[in-house]
Amino acid sequence: MREERLILVTNDDGYKASGLNVLVEIAERFGRVVVVAPSEGQSGMSHAITVKYPLRLFRPDRESNREMYVCTGTPVDCVKLALNRILPRKPDLILSGINHGVNSSASVFYSGTIGAAREGIINRIPSIAFSYMDYSLQPDYSSIKEVICAIIQKVVENNLVPCYALNVNIPLVKEGPLKGIKICRQTQGCWQEEFEKRTDPHGFDYYWLTGKFVNYEPEAEDTDEWALKNNYVAIVPIHADATAYEAMKELQQWTF
Amino acid sequence: MREERLILVTNDDGYKASGLNVLVEIAERFGRVVVVAPSEGQSGMSHAITVKYPLRLFRPDRESNREMYVCTGTPVDCVKLALNRILPRKPDLILSGINHGVNSSASVFYSGTIGAAREGIINRIPSIAFSYMDYSLQPDYSSIKEVICAIIQKVVENNLVPCYALNVNIPLVKEGPLKGIKICRQTQGCWQEEFEKRTDPHGFDYYWLTGKFVNYEPEAEDTDEWALKNNYVAIVPIHADATAYEAMKELQQWTF
Repeated sequence: MREERLILVTNDDGYKASGLNVLVEIAERFGRVVVVAPSEGQSGMSHAITVKYPLRLFRPDRESNREMYVCTGTPVDCVKLALNRILPRKPDLILSGINHGVNSSASVFYSGTIGAAREGIINRIPSIAFSYMDYSLQPDYSSIKEVICAIIQKVVENNLVPCYALNVNIPLVKEGPLKGIKICRQTQGCWQEEFEKRTDPHGFDYYWLTGKFVNYEPEAEDTDEWALKNNYVAIVPIHADATAYEAMKELQQWTF
Repeated sequence: MREERLILVTNDDGYKASGLNVLVEIAERFGRVVVVAPSEGQSGMSHAITVKYPLRLFRPDRESNREMYVCTGTPVDCVKLALNRILPRKPDLILSGINHGVNSSASVFYSGTIGAAREGIINRIPSIAFSYMDYSLQPDYSSIKEVICAIIQKVVENNLVPCYALNVNIPLVKEGPLKGIKICRQTQGCWQEEFEKRTDPHGFDYYWLTGKFVNYEPEAEDTDEWALKNNYVAIVPIHADATAYEAMKELQQWTF
């Protein structure tokens, strides 16, 4: 008999985030779900790990039927603790999200949600990160459950190879339906920071990170930014190999 | 007249680290150096940015001739603050390191040293991360200054395109000389965590991240791990595009 599918769910907005709850509900249709999520918001934590301090692990609600663990570290710490201390075996799938806000273009490098999914594929486990463009305090996930379910279904049916994770970004469509799903590449772009300078009551300066996104290629139609702007769900397959292979030949010609 | 070359130096071990000092000394041979480094050790901070708290910036030693700024955030925060609040113009080069310990294989994703260099190329600035395999409390950098200098010289001579950063790892060679410099790809591998469980004086458990590196491809001779093991300096060009292009065609055949 086939063993029940084991699914790890995590996020970077913390265990109380409504996006996590929605993703767990969807995941439960596909197998046994274990949640290991950060105790606090970990937005912008990228692929960070906690090396200077030890981690704590606790059960937020022992009464609940849900297998949920809370970890004081980063999303990547959550995955590592899950794989090594919590799960009975290697999971069949890792789901991360649903992130409060999109993680397209260069945000793939800042996002803790995507960090967790990348940690999955480093460990050769099929992994998907979900992010949603709704920035309101209480996002309404009802209209996007179906598409998330469809994507997980396809990943399961097609036995997604664990060599790359899917970075799924879902647009907020105010009028009309989602246009569909597009497989895209990451948009080349950057955040142009402004750093709002303020002075504290003691006369010392401090800086808040603020900024706006600059798309280096606004005309390109095969990018995640384009897809989102045009009401498509953007799926970018991302890998865990940072090598710029195209640069190797040129560099090999340098004589040191 | 050609403007003097402007070089930003940062690291993840913090502004007091001896590796930073050595890199600054070397960098000063190539132009005007401005240092913006973290106030504390930021190992394992990856490409993280500080969004929940504001950042502070201070001058550690106003008497010194060195243009050094210290930032309370991550290495990527340091680069962002440097570019937006400190430097008079976009720098010609970003140098990050010298990291205390190597950042080969999957460590490219955990390393704050490499995060800073990746932030450089996201902003289209040629960037190099240096890491050294000496794990002793007081590493002796004297034997590696020459090779670091040679690498910077080549980057400058060849006008390294700012589309990829160089991840330079230098082995600790105990007997005999360095064998040379190899342009490599990132080794496929992962850290197998063990998480040492301890109990605090109050009876609560906590976990220390520990682990050992598992090389998925120990026989491959074109990897950074192989180069380091065989006494070569390993240079892996890394990009800021996470797209797994090889996966796109297959995914485009999925019907949702």
